[in-house]
Amino acid sequence: MTPELKQTSEQIISTELIIKKAVEVICGKWRLIIIHLLREKTLRYGEIKRGVPGISEKVLVHELKQLVELGMVDKQSFGEVPPRVEYSLNEKGRTVLPVIDLLREVGQAFI
Amino acid sequence: MTPELKQTSEQIISTELIIKKAVEVICGKWRLIIIHLLREKTLRYGEIKRGVPGISEKVLVHELKQLVELGMVDKQSFGEVPPRVEYSLNEKGRTVLPVIDLLREVGQAFI
Repeated sequence: MTPELKQTSEQIISTELIIKKAVEVICGKWRLIIIHLLREKTLRYGEIKRGVPGISEKVLVHELKQLVELGMVDKQSFGEVPPRVEYSLNEKGRTVLPVIDLLREVGQAFI
Repeated sequence: MTPELKQTSEQIISTELIIKKAVEVICGKWRLIIIHLLREKTLRYGEIKRGVPGISEKVLVHELKQLVELGMVDKQSFGEVPPRVEYSLNEKGRTVLPVIDLLREVGQAFI
């Protein structure tokens, strides 16, 4: 392989890895819907549940946990009775918002 | 429900549907990788296979079929021996290219 061809091949692999990672981050039936819901303000668990009709309790809890683990959403628990848990989109999570805006445009062509 | 609240709710549902459709279109482990490969030029089946290392024959055939069914890729078969089949990204398929470019930027933060 000539150095030139090798470089091109490495560039393609790197792009492929980045795209794969991004797909992993944004894909999933509810992922972007939840992020979109949190774009305007911090929400309590129950508010998110009501904002995403059709999602099961189990899946929502799992999705929120994953968003926290990916470092996109901050979770804050308040020592109150009844317990209050709030979720907010942090700076890293907000990097995905332009993707949602673009997908809203692109998605129209496929409806 | 007041008319104002109803309207907001309808807007959210509509946005949700569009995002869901877009997610359906772009998601999948290989979907964007194949589209990215076809962005520069028409490719034969074998060229796509070599450009997406790690994909199985079965999955690639299925993916290409889906891209054709979604109206994003055109398939052309030439009556030659050996048979020649070429795939090209059409206008509808090209609407997804800005998403790939944006994901390449956004994906960096998650590597």
